[in-house]
Amino acid sequence: MKIGVDYYPEHWDPAIWEQDAQQMQAAGITIVRLAEFAWSRLEPTEGQFDFAWLDRAIETLARYGHKVVIGTPTATPPNWLVEKCPDVLPLNHQRQPMYPGVRLHRCYNSPSLRRYTELIVERLTRHFGQNPHVIGWQTDNEMIGHESHSDGATEDFRAWLKQRYGDLATLNAAWGTVVWSGEYSAWSQVKTPLGGSPHQNPSFLLDFQRFCSDSTADFNRFQAGLIRANCPHQFITHNLWGYPVINDYYDLFDSMDFVSVDYYPSTDLNSDAKANIYHGALTLDLTRGVKRANFWVMEQLSGTPGCWHAMSRTPQPGMIRARAWQSIARGADTIVHFRWRSARIGAEQFWHGLLDHHGEPGRRFEEFCGFSAEVQRLAPLIDGSTVHNEVALLFSHEQLNALRIQPQSDGFDYLANFKRLHRGFVEKGIGTDVINWRADFQHYRLVVAPYLFLLDQDVADKLEQYVAAGGTVLLTTRSGVKDMRNVCQPARLPGLLAELAGVEVDEYDPVGRDLQQLDFGQAGQYLCDQWCDVLTPTTASVVASYASDYFAGRAAVTRNSFGQGTAYYLGTVLEDEAYAMLLGRIVRELGIAHVPDLPPGVELSVRSGPAGKLLFVINLNKEAQQVTLTQQQYTSALDGRQYAQTIALPAMGVEVLRLA
Amino acid sequence: MKIGVDYYPEHWDPAIWEQDAQQMQAAGITIVRLAEFAWSRLEPTEGQFDFAWLDRAIETLARYGHKVVIGTPTATPPNWLVEKCPDVLPLNHQRQPMYPGVRLHRCYNSPSLRRYTELIVERLTRHFGQNPHVIGWQTDNEMIGHESHSDGATEDFRAWLKQRYGDLATLNAAWGTVVWSGEYSAWSQVKTPLGGSPHQNPSFLLDFQRFCSDSTADFNRFQAGLIRANCPHQFITHNLWGYPVINDYYDLFDSMDFVSVDYYPSTDLNSDAKANIYHGALTLDLTRGVKRANFWVMEQLSGTPGCWHAMSRTPQPGMIRARAWQSIARGADTIVHFRWRSARIGAEQFWHGLLDHHGEPGRRFEEFCGFSAEVQRLAPLIDGSTVHNEVALLFSHEQLNALRIQPQSDGFDYLANFKRLHRGFVEKGIGTDVINWRADFQHYRLVVAPYLFLLDQDVADKLEQYVAAGGTVLLTTRSGVKDMRNVCQPARLPGLLAELAGVEVDEYDPVGRDLQQLDFGQAGQYLCDQWCDVLTPTTASVVASYASDYFAGRAAVTRNSFGQGTAYYLGTVLEDEAYAMLLGRIVRELGIAHVPDLPPGVELSVRSGPAGKLLFVINLNKEAQQVTLTQQQYTSALDGRQYAQTIALPAMGVEVLRLA
Amino acid sequence: MKIGVDYYPEHWDPAIWEQDAQQMQAAGITIVRLAEFAWSRLEPTEGQFDFAWLDRAIETLARYGHKVVIGTPTATPPNWLVEKCPDVLPLNHQRQPMYPGVRLHRCYNSPSLRRYTELIVERLTRHFGQNPHVIGWQTDNEMIGHESHSDGATEDFRAWLKQRYGDLATLNAAWGTVVWSGEYSAWSQVKTPLGGSPHQNPSFLLDFQRFCSDSTADFNRFQAGLIRANCPHQFITHNLWGYPVINDYYDLFDSMDFVSVDYYPSTDLNSDAKANIYHGALTLDLTRGVKRANFWVMEQLSGTPGCWHAMSRTPQPGMIRARAWQSIARGADTIVHFRWRSARIGAEQFWHGLLDHHGEPGRRFEEFCGFSAEVQRLAPLIDGSTVHNEVALLFSHEQLNALRIQPQSDGFDYLANFKRLHRGFVEKGIGTDVINWRADFQHYRLVVAPYLFLLDQDVADKLEQYVAAGGTVLLTTRSGVKDMRNVCQPARLPGLLAELAGVEVDEYDPVGRDLQQLDFGQAGQYLCDQWCDVLTPTTASVVASYASDYFAGRAAVTRNSFGQGTAYYLGTVLEDEAYAMLLGRIVRELGIAHVPDLPPGVELSVRSGPAGKLLFVINLNKEAQQVTLTQQQYTSALDGRQYAQTIALPAMGVEVLRLA
Repeated sequence: MKIGVDYYPEHWDPAIWEQDAQQMQAAGITIVRLAEFAWSRLEPTEGQFDFAWLDRAIETLARYGHKVVIGTPTATPPNWLVEKCPDVLPLNHQRQPMYPGVRLHRCYNSPSLRRYTELIVERLTRHFGQNPHVIGWQTDNEMIGHESHSDGATEDFRAWLKQRYGDLATLNAAWGTVVWSGEYSAWSQVKTPLGGSPHQNPSFLLDFQRFCSDSTADFNRFQAGLIRANCPHQFITHNLWGYPVINDYYDLFDSMDFVSVDYYPSTDLNSDAKANIYHGALTLDLTRGVKRANFWVMEQLSGTPGCWHAMSRTPQPGMIRARAWQSIARGADTIVHFRWRSARIGAEQFWHGLLDHHGEPGRRFEEFCGFSAEVQRLAPLIDGSTVHNEVALLFSHEQLNALRIQPQSDGFDYLANFKRLHRGFVEKGIGTDVINWRADFQHYRLVVAPYLFLLDQDVADKLEQYVAAGGTVLLTTRSGVKDMRNVCQPARLPGLLAELAGVEVDEYDPVGRDLQQLDFGQAGQYLCDQWCDVLTPTTASVVASYASDYFAGRAAVTRNSFGQGTAYYLGTVLEDEAYAMLLGRIVRELGIAHVPDLPPGVELSVRSGPAGKLLFVINLNKEAQQVTLTQQQYTSALDGRQYAQTIALPAMGVEVLRLA
Repeated sequence: MKIGVDYYPEHWDPAIWEQDAQQMQAAGITIVRLAEFAWSRLEPTEGQFDFAWLDRAIETLARYGHKVVIGTPTATPPNWLVEKCPDVLPLNHQRQPMYPGVRLHRCYNSPSLRRYTELIVERLTRHFGQNPHVIGWQTDNEMIGHESHSDGATEDFRAWLKQRYGDLATLNAAWGTVVWSGEYSAWSQVKTPLGGSPHQNPSFLLDFQRFCSDSTADFNRFQAGLIRANCPHQFITHNLWGYPVINDYYDLFDSMDFVSVDYYPSTDLNSDAKANIYHGALTLDLTRGVKRANFWVMEQLSGTPGCWHAMSRTPQPGMIRARAWQSIARGADTIVHFRWRSARIGAEQFWHGLLDHHGEPGRRFEEFCGFSAEVQRLAPLIDGSTVHNEVALLFSHEQLNALRIQPQSDGFDYLANFKRLHRGFVEKGIGTDVINWRADFQHYRLVVAPYLFLLDQDVADKLEQYVAAGGTVLLTTRSGVKDMRNVCQPARLPGLLAELAGVEVDEYDPVGRDLQQLDFGQAGQYLCDQWCDVLTPTTASVVASYASDYFAGRAAVTRNSFGQGTAYYLGTVLEDEAYAMLLGRIVRELGIAHVPDLPPGVELSVRSGPAGKLLFVINLNKEAQQVTLTQQQYTSALDGRQYAQTIALPAMGVEVLRLA
Repeated sequence: MKIGVDYYPEHWDPAIWEQDAQQMQAAGITIVRLAEFAWSRLEPTEGQFDFAWLDRAIETLARYGHKVVIGTPTATPPNWLVEKCPDVLPLNHQRQPMYPGVRLHRCYNSPSLRRYTELIVERLTRHFGQNPHVIGWQTDNEMIGHESHSDGATEDFRAWLKQRYGDLATLNAAWGTVVWSGEYSAWSQVKTPLGGSPHQNPSFLLDFQRFCSDSTADFNRFQAGLIRANCPHQFITHNLWGYPVINDYYDLFDSMDFVSVDYYPSTDLNSDAKANIYHGALTLDLTRGVKRANFWVMEQLSGTPGCWHAMSRTPQPGMIRARAWQSIARGADTIVHFRWRSARIGAEQFWHGLLDHHGEPGRRFEEFCGFSAEVQRLAPLIDGSTVHNEVALLFSHEQLNALRIQPQSDGFDYLANFKRLHRGFVEKGIGTDVINWRADFQHYRLVVAPYLFLLDQDVADKLEQYVAAGGTVLLTTRSGVKDMRNVCQPARLPGLLAELAGVEVDEYDPVGRDLQQLDFGQAGQYLCDQWCDVLTPTTASVVASYASDYFAGRAAVTRNSFGQGTAYYLGTVLEDEAYAMLLGRIVRELGIAHVPDLPPGVELSVRSGPAGKLLFVINLNKEAQQVTLTQQQYTSALDGRQYAQTIALPAMGVEVLRLA
């Protein structure tokens, strides 16, 4: 367990570097990330490299015990490069450039970007590859795989398609371009989806999204290769930006040693607070799931965010500590706070760091120091520990993109619906692994596989095998609709999952925001919306029926025994209370540990390691909460305090309990 | 009366064509529309025509008794054509192209489009002109007259203006370009309205809309000419898309044998249901009014629409039948359902057809089959019958465009206000003809002529002659404001209608959404909004006065005896209840048959023909309704059932009654 | 005191000029503005000037005693100029031109615009400079300083930066371009902020706004220079358009003899009426403050506005008179009504003038004539009088622009917050001068200096000196945050004002729309929002503390004795009721005359001159109001009526009282 900060020495008078390094040391910091975005300082004009300032900065930091992570500066091509090679700029769907000055103004498909990336990264890594104070590298910054419609992108897209489909006849058939006379008779006719019309062929649009994602991952691999060649003893990571999601995280990190994430949970505790509070847990679970391993937080909330947009609320007392502990609880091994000093210059002036513009320690800084000291104290217990859960949620960028291209009904959103399911577990204190839908999941007690809109035999088979062998799966509506080309299956839904689910979808109604009634028998009446499959159980039994509209009385939620296991099918989207009831019933049956009456906003997580098990209990609310746990007695790892079963947590309170 | 489907054999394995043709026959289908959008299959590369597949498809269908309508594929220029002649693409007001792949990506003013249209249509019609199974042609698809700012459009616009105005001095005077120094001193300065600013000269903007409309109609005439030359024994039609409306339908269809319409009434019965339900009746009345004759529905609702946008509700049980009967009730002679199979590929995958993706008959298909059988049974009674009404509403694309260019007040919308007036009649079971404002209307009992914002002496004279001869007219505010150049009249309003209305507008107040009070004397108090004319009756009597704001006590609604007839003037926009009361009073006075207490959402229509009169009673609600009609006894043409005066209709219930 | 109208003889048949001139005379008009926008008539083709029509128009008007103001027509480059020199068009941030036909389609940085402006203005002024009927000139029209990204603008921007910063090293340092590798290594890399991204460097964005403002003022100076050379005995003014505000009014008018304003107060008395009503007072105070002198209204509300947008409410009876008197009350010396006749042609057809399209006098015209007669009667009392106030509000375009570039919190808007403060005084009948924040303010009793986000030593020193010498200042949150480069100060807030305010901001919370509680002790509890500074008083005493959230109990509003004077600091944004209470307390303490219970919408203003003092009492409501003033007796200057302390005003009522 280590604590760090993001630091931009190039923004400050070198005269204060030493004082900063010393103050960092006093605050318990041992890791400093540097040089992200500093291309114009590292290579002020073409081919003239200047690493001396960075040498000095590292040397200064090292004198106070700090280890350094260097960010490659490729997210910010400098003006001289843009001027010389305008093709480094991405073009939007009207072929207008994204202008420099704003970060991320680079087209991953630009040959010039590759060439100059190679030069700067090669030089940087050669220079710092043997530096004992440099422990690792961060590639680029928050590579959200934006679209580019440049000439480079067009050419790369054609090459990508040739690789995938071979010839135009195959491409035309796969995409169904015969519709609306969209057939290509020459490769030169194949373009990126210019004009931004949503009326374009959905197979074309989805493949273009895959291409964008692959281009992004490929650019990351390219950098990783350059770094590895010169820095065999330093790690390579990249800092994930949560949302919006275009590219496939699993691919993006295949060349990285571990995952890092930039974690800025909402500071708003008033409006729509419930969703806000729980959203962070999903971010962290998703991050841990990318490589199914512990991770770093490379940028952790330190003050109010806000720059070009209005500032949010300042983190209230306790929030910085609580959110940092939450990161650890869910698998972070290093927390790097963003940023040391709040920027005086440039576009991020109001994205506040640990220190305000005046530079003197304040409430937030003190809270950080306290947290840092706690971590130092607990590090022996945490080091080497990991998170193990019994429930997995299968996440899929394919579904996310396909369902964004073709929204199914008013209000139907893959990510929002995924969050609601995830929250259903967090609210019961149940840990979940959020993993790649193509990953192995055979060892989980419960697998939630929502909205498998695109599906192939491989995943369908794995789900069947898993259940046949005794697993429990929760399937949902809008599954099995399409094959991987984004073409509709000519089969009764849920298509490849019909046998596993034991149901057939007779018809469906995209009810959107027209609320419908569900009858769960003795469990009562609930609401649903967005979509209603009208089901005929073939081998399944009925869990809930509709109690409204013309499909009243027809099956809506079912349960099917399949081999040794069980498959639930949700033919509609439940309201939160219905999820709570249904998931509660399922985890009780499976004997999965949970806390039925966990107060809202209180989260649990367990890390196990060589020094035993730790239960993290974190109150992310602005109100104090009483938490009744399952054991009769607990000991605090923070201060040795003894607790009976019920623990009182103040607002933003954190406890770390040693489990037997 | 015939029933058909839209079918895209080129999207499906030819192996299933035969089975489809057979199943269509069993479902009572005799008409199939083909080949719309199939340019890339009919001419895969330039000059290489392939009609063999279409021959085979027609032959297969013909074996099962189907007659075919062929759509010319010009709405979808293929990629090879776009690549060779980029000028086929329309340019938006920033001169950005509309990219291919999305339908309708063709500029009517492109010389290349004309040339290649001529080639494909000439070849197609030569090939199929003598085919006995081909009964007719549909030109293009849903020609909504979008704007193009291409070089071709610019040149054609100049030619159009020269034709209309002769020289620049006349043009400058007509448009009043002296304002803001907009005078043209050379034709080369005349452009289309680039930049999309609403600040442009309104005479210029309206003429450009007229030009767009004329360009569209001209392209349709061009195709019609090509078809007629080769296909003297086959009909020519075009499928109208309802809204938004830019081009003039009356011009668009002047070269067609009859009108077709694509009819997708809203499936949403919950939110804003009232307006949704009645909107369909206007679409159908407007369609019938284009040529004042019966028409086809070329695409009729068969399943939930939804593609690039979220899907709507699935048609609930009975709706497909009820809406199809509604089409017939209001003048359709053939109903072609869109589409046979739901698409597996391309952008319209979720615009559901009669068959779902799995291809097996379901609830909607069975309902369609039942409807089809009913139609077959009733055909002898319906064949040759038409709709005759006593009330006409004058519709004008000129007003619609002029009032969109210069919105009069907050909430004031020509089409929305027109709908409210039309609904006022439908709610009373009164049939209305919605006709061209320049058409002949002398034989109607009541003519509603709303919002004649632009007016010339010709229409003003016809209205006066009509009333003088005993007719009743309902005029409204914002009439007589402008001449046809879109220039304000230097006259007291309602200008050319002042004598007919017997009022003068002293002043007006664009009250927008500030609700105002109206006093109808013994008929009570009502609300109005949008606009308040403050009237001085010259010869008219006062029907209602304002009862609010500074114009309280001043006349708002008047009635004038003029010759043998009567002219009402509505100086403001009434709330629905006020329309119901006032229109009720007017139709009672005129002895126009109506049903005072018709339940909401129930519609009546009468068709008369050689086999007598049929009264269609259709409940478009999701609730059952009791309808009390005017006769003492009725016989159902559907099943011979006898009814007394009151008829119970289930949700979506339909009755067809024989009238004495 | 004079009354005028705006008149466009070129839009009308010369046959009616004489009749118009005569009718104007009868209506009490003596001033007519002409020729604004008439470039295509004054120079129909390049170099062919035609002033004969304007000679005739002036001659006709002069025969009826009218004096003429000529507008230079440079806001509307004619089509021949645009065709010859397309660079006269401004380019937006995507480098798309603003097309002609819409007014204001000229780039101030276009060399061609300068050249042709020089030609037309030189000729015009040479021709009319000696005309005894021409008394003055209006430059251009409503120069809102829009952005242009043309080549001319790019070059001028570089020159502007070189002038300001000298070299690139200095520029890079000043803007902090090191952030995100934005450093320039060659001047050719410096562009205008293309692409419109808010992520750009805020120092860059603010300097570009300053450059736009300077370019606008420079274009105005350029014209002023041309006019002065030929017209030494005629005045020069420009007509200010209120909002949105980009350019600095104080610079814009430095070359003008006096300020004119176009005054179109809202005619909507229903929705959000309070803010609407008071907004006009700020416009007028701000206008008077530009040169701290009386001004003209060059366009005064005469009818409903509306053209490309929906029309607003028609001015209700009394409103035209009341708003014209309001203009006089707050410093107007001439009121020119816009416009004589409502336009029949062009884009402004529904921006109604005094006469409607039919041209006959109506209610509004009669009201105008009555007002005009009143003014004639009172002119001897008003002539030479001016407005003197004891309260100043410091207005700053710098803050407005900087706070738009970096919005501070949800709902935080400089202008809206400024209006609320200003309204707080108007509601108490207190006159305020709204002046340039860099102007001298030492003689005021109370200075309100809100949101000094950018601040330099000069203004900070002046504020300190002012208070030290006995003045009272009201400071607010978000002051002293930045230096003039738009770079954050490395100091505890309020930075340069900390000693004056006697507080330090420990931390802040951008609470946005989360309402917070304030405890004013005996004065009660109030609400605040947008922003909460958490204060530590150093020398100040606490006026109000927070009573909610984690900063409950901490100081929010303070009062500091500094030298002989007092400095208030508002650490948050108060609700209206809290402003009313706090400002009431302050003005009572300072003995500033006010009327505590002035009814809402009633405004007071005093003009003093050689003929004594006049108190204007104007009811801008649609309801009658009773106003209790401070003296025991009053005499109406309008009709000599005697009043006791309480005066009854009808809706839109106006009284002008002679003060002892």
